[in-house]
This record gives sequence, C-alpha cells and structure tokens, in this order.
Amino acid sequence: MNPGNILVAQGGGPTAVINQSVVGVALEARKYAQVRSVYGALHGVRGIVKEDFINLSRETPDNLELVAATPSSGLLSTRDKPDEEYCARMFEIMRKHDIRYFFYAGGNDSSDTVRIVNQQARDIGYEFRAVHIPKTIDNDLACNDHCPGFGSAARFVSQAFMGLNLDNRALEGVLIGVVMGRHAGFLTAASALAQKYPDDGPHLIYVPERPFSTDRFLADVDRVMHKEGLCIIAVSEGIQDEAGEAIATKLATTVERDAHGNVQLSGTGALGDLLAGLLKDKLKLKRVRADTFGYLQRSFMGVVSDRDAREAREVGEMAVQYALLDDKDGSVVIRRPILDYGVEYALAPLADVAGKTRHMPDEFLNGEGNGVTDAFLRYCRPLAGSTLPRPHRFRAPKVAAI
Amino acid sequence: MNPGNILVAQGGGPTAVINQSVVGVALEARKYAQVRSVYGALHGVRGIVKEDFINLSRETPDNLELVAATPSSGLLSTRDKPDEEYCARMFEIMRKHDIRYFFYAGGNDSSDTVRIVNQQARDIGYEFRAVHIPKTIDNDLACNDHCPGFGSAARFVSQAFMGLNLDNRALEGVLIGVVMGRHAGFLTAASALAQKYPDDGPHLIYVPERPFSTDRFLADVDRVMHKEGLCIIAVSEGIQDEAGEAIATKLATTVERDAHGNVQLSGTGALGDLLAGLLKDKLKLKRVRADTFGYLQRSFMGVVSDRDAREAREVGEMAVQYALLDDKDGSVVIRRPILDYGVEYALAPLADVAGKTRHMPDEFLNGEGNGVTDAFLRYCRPLAGSTLPRPHRFRAPKVAAI
Repeated sequence: MNPGNILVAQGGGPTAVINQSVVGVALEARKYAQVRSVYGALHGVRGIVKEDFINLSRETPDNLELVAATPSSGLLSTRDKPDEEYCARMFEIMRKHDIRYFFYAGGNDSSDTVRIVNQQARDIGYEFRAVHIPKTIDNDLACNDHCPGFGSAARFVSQAFMGLNLDNRALEGVLIGVVMGRHAGFLTAASALAQKYPDDGPHLIYVPERPFSTDRFLADVDRVMHKEGLCIIAVSEGIQDEAGEAIATKLATTVERDAHGNVQLSGTGALGDLLAGLLKDKLKLKRVRADTFGYLQRSFMGVVSDRDAREAREVGEMAVQYALLDDKDGSVVIRRPILDYGVEYALAPLADVAGKTRHMPDEFLNGEGNGVTDAFLRYCRPLAGSTLPRPHRFRAPKVAAI
Repeated sequence: MNPGNILVAQGGGPTAVINQSVVGVALEARKYAQVRSVYGALHGVRGIVKEDFINLSRETPDNLELVAATPSSGLLSTRDKPDEEYCARMFEIMRKHDIRYFFYAGGNDSSDTVRIVNQQARDIGYEFRAVHIPKTIDNDLACNDHCPGFGSAARFVSQAFMGLNLDNRALEGVLIGVVMGRHAGFLTAASALAQKYPDDGPHLIYVPERPFSTDRFLADVDRVMHKEGLCIIAVSEGIQDEAGEAIATKLATTVERDAHGNVQLSGTGALGDLLAGLLKDKLKLKRVRADTFGYLQRSFMGVVSDRDAREAREVGEMAVQYALLDDKDGSVVIRRPILDYGVEYALAPLADVAGKTRHMPDEFLNGEGNGVTDAFLRYCRPLAGSTLPRPHRFRAPKVAAI
C-alpha cells in the first residue's frame, strides 16, 4: 500500500477518555516510517468536508499526554451523518491530502459512518484503510464486552449514587437519579456499584430493556418506603412503556430531534420532575427530589477509571496496528477472557458493529425488572476502575436510655 | 465546671467534609481527662429529644478517620428548628445524660438553634457550654471569610463546568448549569474557576445578589452566541427578579416549603428548563441544554478540597478547645489573614452569626451583574483545594488547504 497521511477524528457524544484513543493513534503512528503526517479533523466528518485539519505530528508528546488526560473530544465532534454525496466530498478532500488511513472514534452512528466511507472508497477504487475505534458511555456497541468511555461514566454514576445515598440517609426522602441511556441501561445499572451497606440504594433501578409501568413503579416505591423509610431510584432517560414509547416524550410539549432522528432526552429535568410529581400525587410522599445527571456524567473533569483510560489508549494503538501492519479495515472490539480482569482486542467487520445496538443481557436484570443481578455487579465493578472510593459509617453503640 | 459528657450533632444540609468536624470533636475531646464520653445525637436536635445517641468514645481512631473522609452527615441530620418547648425537652434529656458540652455543626439555621439552646440553658441555670461549628456549601455565614463545606462544593462546581466547557465546545450549543444557592451566589460564582482558555465558559454568571432580568439575560446570551458560537451559563437556583421574587417559584405549580418556610429550589429541573425554553423561544436557538446539579454537588463521593477537609477538622477541634479550655460559648469562625493562603480561628458571639446571611460583596461581582471579578477568583481559587485538575487542548497547527 502507498505511503501517505493518516487522518483521525472523533464523532458523537464525548466521553472522559476519548482523547486517549486519538493520542493512541498519534503516538503509535509515529513508529511507522511510511506515515508522513497524522492529521486530526476538527468536528469529525464535518471537518473533513470543510478541509479543517490540524497536524498532530507537530504535537509534543508531553502535550499529547496532557490532552489524553482531558475529558471530551479534543478534536471536537459532530452529529453529522454522511450520505453518499457527503462521502464523495469527503473523498475529494482526503485524496487531495493523500490520506490513506482513516480512524474514527465514536459510537453506533460513527461506526456506520466508517462503514459508508469504507464502502465508498472501495466503490471508487481508492486505496484506503478505515478503522472504527469504539467509544460510548452507553456501552451499547455490538461485538464488544464493553466500550471505552463506559467505565469512567460508570464510575461517575457510582460515585454520584454513593453521595445520594449518604445525603438521603441524612435527610430522609425519595431521590430519583436520571441517568443517560436511550436504549441500553448499562450506565443506569452501574448505579448499583454504589451499594455497600445492606440498606444502601439504589433500591430500584429502571432501564430501557424492561417496559416501565407506572403502577408497578408506584408499588415498588411504596414497598421500599415502608421497609426503609427512604428510597433511592436510578432511572434511564430512555425508559419506555409496553408500546415502546419513551416515558420522557409522553410529556414533552415540543419534541426536538437531531440529525439522526433521535429525540432529546438529556439536558432537561422533565422526566425526573414527572416521576417525582407522580410519587407526590399518588403516594402522598412529601420529600421527593429528582436529579438529572445530564452532561456532567460524560465529561466531568477528574473522575476517570484507570482501566478505562488504558483501554481507550489501546484501542487507538490497535487500530493503527490493524490498518498499518495487517492492512485491514474494521472495528476494534474489546473482549474479556478474564472476568476480573483482563482484556484482549480484535478486529470485527464494520457491518457487524455499524448501526447495531447491544442491550443488557437478561442475566444482568432481575425478574421484577427493577434491579440488577450479581452477574452484572461482577461484570461492571472492574470497569469502574481499580480503586472506587467507598463510604464508611460510624459503628459506635447506642447509648442506653435513662 | 463539672466534668460530664459531650454531645455532638449535625444539622441542615450535608457537605462533603462535615464528618471531619464531628471527628475533630471526638478526637480532640479524648485529650481531656474530665470528659467521660462523647455522644453523637442521630438526626441532630431530633435525636436529642428522642434520646437517640451513639457513644463515639467507643469508635476506633481508624474508623473515625474513614468516616471523616466520607461525605454527608454521618450522624444524620434534621431540618427541625427547636422552639422554647422543644428546647425544654432537649434539656431534660441532656441533663439526664449529664451532658455539659454541646457542639452543633450546621449553617444559619443550626447556629440559631445553638443560640436558642444556649439561652435556655442560661435561663434555667444549667451549667452548660454550647458551640456552633460552621458548615455550609452556601458560604453564607456571617463573620466568616469562608465556611467549611464550601471549598469542596466549589471544587465540584468548578470541575463540573470544566467538563461542560469541554463537552459544549465539542458539540456547540448553549448549556445552562443550575447551581445551589438560595440567597448567596458564592457557589455559582465558583464556576468561574473553570475558566482556563480565553474563550472558556461560563460566559455568563447569575447570582441572587443581582436582580435577574429576562430581557438582559436574552441580550447577554445573544451577544455571547454571536461572539463565541456557543454559550455556557451558570445560574443560582435562587435568582430573583427586581421585586425579590424567585424566578424558580414564578413557574412552580405547587410550592413546597420546609419547616423553616423555605421554598424547594433543589431537586427539580424546572428553573433550568424554563430558562432553556426562553432561549429557544425568543432567540430561536436550537441546541439549548440545562443541567441542574442538584444534590450531586454537596455529597459527591471523591471530590474534596484538601484545604476544606483540613479546616473542617480544625473547626471541630477548636470548638472543643474554646469550650473546655476557655470555658466559652460561641460560634467558631474562620479568618484569612493570608489571602493565598492561611487561616486562623476565632470564637464569635452566637448572636452575631445566628440567623444571618452573608452575601457576596460588591467587589466580587462585575458591573453588568453577569459575571465575577478577579478579586473573587483570588478569593475562591485556594478554597477549591491545592490541586484542581486542569483541561488541556491540542496546540497543533492547522494544515494548509490544498
């Protein structure tokens, strides 16, 4: 294959470790004599059609490491979804710059973009390798045991619920935490890592994989309140009813959709407030609070899983190796031959990953549809990092009444 | 003064470091031979009237240190505000248990409780010392340079806005972050610590100390959008109009009040969603998001300012010294003779602190009422801890168009 330039870009929602992947590409590529320069496209595919590149070969290793440790997409992102015509314009630019290797870090939508781009390259006979680098806090990419970005977001959600447990124990009431997750409940389920003491929350966990029933929700909360005198609830923003309609959209007066046709679920407290209102109205509960985690959970500065960061770096490095050493296209996937804990990487066909959504397997969810199993905890705990902070309680004995 | 037992309790909203103060009391008290036992009242003054105590003298130093490092009120809290009759019941219990020293960690309301209790003790001639230990993420206690709990919450808010900056730069739009603060804007203002690069947000900061005008708000956002193409906004939950009415309550259908007559502002996304709706309607902006930080900001596990933790410990230790060595009542206050950075402690009369609210001084707020001054940054930066994480950007040069 021709020597040429490398192009790397980031698409979709940011994560806390997505810059690790770009830096993994940039540093790994420096080892190959045939690589002239590593370009970064600003704002993903949008930067490609606009010929908006920076030359990452001019970055110092020191600054690359500093950016790698910074959350969110350092090359900036986009939600553009290229069609045939968009791709044709991308190739025109890439050809002009003699780009022969394209690495795109992103989720379901981004992997589909890589698939389209790759197909276009073949159709027009342009010598080209394109590799999708996995990234999503939703953890919903097919063929992967888990996805870079998820572990750090899971760590944030877990630490957040630890705090909500402690806070709500001090001043009893009901606390609903609304977590990102449109179709997959992995991140919401990670709230269960906050449980240390037997009475710790979240006492109830609702995910999109199980239909949400208002009646069952009310009965669940009523039961927990009678037992514990307080209740911590984790809810995915994407919970839906039996008919598949999102609970959040049922009450939205104006529905906002992005270029992929997705309805806005984050960046609004509506779902949490609706559920809190339900509990106040129907169960006559007084202190009901709803916290919607919103964008805090995916780019928060300073909460990173060490394992997640390492793997995000490695999928970038592996992407370069698959393309430059093996001359292959595809999507880098993570497998876990050792449950607690070791990973290995492989290259899956783009068509196996693109546009597909992985859901939580049944064995991770309890029969009542309101909690997770021990199998999920064993799966998730290592991903949140080698050292999760843990809460502690006083153990002093009661003083006898006089 | 008689030897006797010590009682320590926590009141009001939790902070990330309030357990440091209780542990400071417990460990300092172990040095005094005349102290028989250190009791902790569960759920603040409520636990006193219910005779619900644990014996902290039976805690190991190791477990005390583990609890000290755990956020929220380990002794649990209350929002009860004792009246004369409530106090009479408290004394009955305290006398039965030979409690001669009472330490209560809390905010404005709790300091007022200490004042009432202390007055009652004098009135009935009960030999008794009561010291208020300052605590509040709102940073609004009179006589203090700053309050334990604020620094860690400021650190959380700052790290959160660093993440929102990075996230919103990747996928441009408007992001409103709603921060706790009913009457004082210190915590919302701490969002300014997130600014590193000249174009970093928050670009606009609104606090309760300046009347909030919808028209000025719209003009401010419009100006920032034209200049930056994106806008990050920090808003106190307690912003109010010229007439002093809270913007949040203007839209609430049902208004919830606590025992102190305070309206519920936290635990709902309503204010953020209202402001986001305004921007969409009036400025025709498309991507407008609102994140309400809610309870995450005051008990989040794992985000603590080292200076804040140290001072929270010391105000507990000093409270014991003032009562047992100096035989005095009062409220421990923090002064800062060295701006960057050193503190000293003093004992203020309870009446000088109780029930008073400190607001942001004019020199901390800009003339437009939509931002903070350098004086505020110099004041606030050390409080968030000796090492705040910092974001980094790529510095690579643009690739020339072909």
